[in-house]
Amino acid sequence: MIPQETIVALATPSGAGAIAIIRLSGKDAIAIAAEVFQSVSGKDITKQKTHTIHLGHIVDPSTSSGQVGKVYDQVLLSIFKGPNSYTGENVIEISCHGSTFIQQQIIQLLLRRGAKMAQAGEFTLRAFLNGKLDLSQAEAVADLIASDNEASHQIAMQQMRGGFSNEIAKLREELLNFASLIELELDFAEEDVEFADRTQFHELLERIEFVLKRLIDSFAVGNVIKNGIPVAIVGEPNVGKSTLLNALLNEERAIVSDIAGTTRDTIEDELVIDGIGFRFIDTAGIRETKDVVESIGIQKTFEKIEQAQVVLYLVDSVQCSESSLNRLKIEIEKIKNKFPLKPLVVVANKSDLLLAEQKNNIQATIDNILFLSAKQKEGIDELKNTLLSFVNTGALRNNETIVTNTRHYDSLLKALEEVQKVKWGLDSGLSSDLMAIDIRSALHYFGEITGEVTNDELLGNIFANFCIGK
Amino acid sequence: MIPQETIVALATPSGAGAIAIIRLSGKDAIAIAAEVFQSVSGKDITKQKTHTIHLGHIVDPSTSSGQVGKVYDQVLLSIFKGPNSYTGENVIEISCHGSTFIQQQIIQLLLRRGAKMAQAGEFTLRAFLNGKLDLSQAEAVADLIASDNEASHQIAMQQMRGGFSNEIAKLREELLNFASLIELELDFAEEDVEFADRTQFHELLERIEFVLKRLIDSFAVGNVIKNGIPVAIVGEPNVGKSTLLNALLNEERAIVSDIAGTTRDTIEDELVIDGIGFRFIDTAGIRETKDVVESIGIQKTFEKIEQAQVVLYLVDSVQCSESSLNRLKIEIEKIKNKFPLKPLVVVANKSDLLLAEQKNNIQATIDNILFLSAKQKEGIDELKNTLLSFVNTGALRNNETIVTNTRHYDSLLKALEEVQKVKWGLDSGLSSDLMAIDIRSALHYFGEITGEVTNDELLGNIFANFCIGK
Repeated sequence: MIPQETIVALATPSGAGAIAIIRLSGKDAIAIAAEVFQSVSGKDITKQKTHTIHLGHIVDPSTSSGQVGKVYDQVLLSIFKGPNSYTGENVIEISCHGSTFIQQQIIQLLLRRGAKMAQAGEFTLRAFLNGKLDLSQAEAVADLIASDNEASHQIAMQQMRGGFSNEIAKLREELLNFASLIELELDFAEEDVEFADRTQFHELLERIEFVLKRLIDSFAVGNVIKNGIPVAIVGEPNVGKSTLLNALLNEERAIVSDIAGTTRDTIEDELVIDGIGFRFIDTAGIRETKDVVESIGIQKTFEKIEQAQVVLYLVDSVQCSESSLNRLKIEIEKIKNKFPLKPLVVVANKSDLLLAEQKNNIQATIDNILFLSAKQKEGIDELKNTLLSFVNTGALRNNETIVTNTRHYDSLLKALEEVQKVKWGLDSGLSSDLMAIDIRSALHYFGEITGEVTNDELLGNIFANFCIGK
Repeated sequence: MIPQETIVALATPSGAGAIAIIRLSGKDAIAIAAEVFQSVSGKDITKQKTHTIHLGHIVDPSTSSGQVGKVYDQVLLSIFKGPNSYTGENVIEISCHGSTFIQQQIIQLLLRRGAKMAQAGEFTLRAFLNGKLDLSQAEAVADLIASDNEASHQIAMQQMRGGFSNEIAKLREELLNFASLIELELDFAEEDVEFADRTQFHELLERIEFVLKRLIDSFAVGNVIKNGIPVAIVGEPNVGKSTLLNALLNEERAIVSDIAGTTRDTIEDELVIDGIGFRFIDTAGIRETKDVVESIGIQKTFEKIEQAQVVLYLVDSVQCSESSLNRLKIEIEKIKNKFPLKPLVVVANKSDLLLAEQKNNIQATIDNILFLSAKQKEGIDELKNTLLSFVNTGALRNNETIVTNTRHYDSLLKALEEVQKVKWGLDSGLSSDLMAIDIRSALHYFGEITGEVTNDELLGNIFANFCIGK
């Protein structure tokens, strides 16, 4: 059911800028805009072609009679006629001067002329309802806007362009064919015919199982790429943690700061290395507390490590006396025992101040220790490569479909379960009518991903996460 | 001298939003865009009409041969062919998804293809250099973007549409005619002819003087409207200052909050009443200090009052005992004596807790005291009307030209001085050649306002105050 109201919202970020875009969508979008827009050349915008731009003024037509209408701004007005628009409906975009005051005035004027304020994501919801995008593509739009690094951008872009949907749709199509044949058999149940070739069906189910498993596995990578890979930094104060972060960060920042005016919103301790986002989680030092409190300190460190994918243990190499080295070794063992599967990188900072003999001594005691000097920017690249080596970027490199969305992941898990039931049923000679139920169920979960199967609550949840104006 | 480079910048506010606009301007704008844009329908954008919009993808063409180019985003691309564009040059606007990452990627790509990063205000500077706007109109663009209330918006809009320039240009034109005649007389100096009718000239000079004086006077209003009218609030702690500000503010905010997504950047203690901005300046209480420090307290209060246009003296009416009333009266006299021309409003808060007798008592002691209850929202409208009554909105209501720009104000003062010199010269029979010098000088100051007379330093100063992308 497609809504009839014409909606309006600010589509650009709020705040002052050079220009702002106000977007209208709905069957009356052009008519409403025509009431408040006066073309400088006297054109009637209701008679203009789609995908054209017109210069004029936004004028309040309700100014009392005899008076000249109050002019709000000089604007450019873009016309998109449905179905050739983002939403599939008539769309008007008003490019006005970027003052918050003007934005408000124009939006209020359009509301007075009968437009309704758009809900979060309502433009994209309409695009979905009008068949311009499927549900996973619509979700990718939000991911694309939120993407802040190469990898998450690439995945969202692929998903928005239909990579994921196509893969799911193809499997669904094939499964649907078999479902039809199996259900046809039910009509001829008494004659005991087999329209669906059992061998081919088994092959298909195996293929679907394989693809589903691959997609489900990809979620582990997709999820960390989308949210950034959490790295716990363990280390005493003054071992050079922030110098290290700056050394990592500064190089990346240098690229960004080339572009004045596109100031990046830096989140402290969040880094992008080679297009992959890393989130650094600060932990209390393990060693700094000596008494009762110590157990709490260690407990907290363990909690932080629990949340992390990778553990970075930073030490000041200058302070590595023999006794402290042994203590360090014990602590590393503690962490390794507690988290046997979690990659742990021991980093010895301030290596530029180290004698060769000391260095050898440390290397002999602690395996695979990585020496660097955050201050001198030595060894930074090695650390970056080590961090990157923990990310399985194979799928990313091969441009494979990667699942990043928890909703998709859940539906894929359920679909897999149903497909495996069907396979088990096929192998154990289950009757067609019972098998048909499981196939329908699998098809249902496929449909949930692309939005062929949906409900208002689901749509509400999905689009509530969008920003207003999208 | 018009620059040849093609410039690029983000034109929408930085940060994430539904969409962002990247703007290119210059003779190669279309060619550069064509290198990175692939239309979904295979159109060649170099062959498209002006003011048309095209759907496609931003693709990096430099991806190594054999590979498919890397896709940055799906975008809408708008084409404006010079001179029918904002800058008068070829302009391309790319409407991309509003992720900061995507914005950066696309701008970097365009920089790699030969565009240069735009300086602050460079698009508008080019519009000025290409004769699309005069200088005062260009300045109004920045004012328009900065406008945050009805009055400043209206003035900026009028100025951008040429109201101010037209008035100046008309006077300049008339003066120029006389200047030509006077200078013609110089060529015939030996023949003692008078081409310029002295009576008409005198009339013109009087008219110019009148207009200049009016414009100069309007600056007092224009300046406070542009920057907000400063109001000093004097009062002890707990008399209800913030409750009062909230009572004033909340009503205004209610209007704003109707529009989700256009969150207003609230500046504390800044209010818009009936389209006029007021800035509240907090002061230390006068009475609260009793010892040596007292003199400093009073001194500071006086300094704040000095900066203000209006003084609001807030008292807690419940605490107005007879003795405190007399003290209050003395303090009010002190302020009035020190600032005889500054409007002073004495406001008695918490009037809802007052008995009739107490009220009469207060009224009998303090003239024109305004009773209100910030908590009960009683008397708020009266206070608003009182504040508004101090703003001379006559010119605003009559849609007269109001000067808000200090640069214009300076030039007008200088022009007036020269015009008065000319008038004096005319009255005292000064020779044409000397008079001609003063006329030229007056013309020079007129030209400074609209930009007929200009220099790089002046332009640099003006456009440095613009945002990037405008």
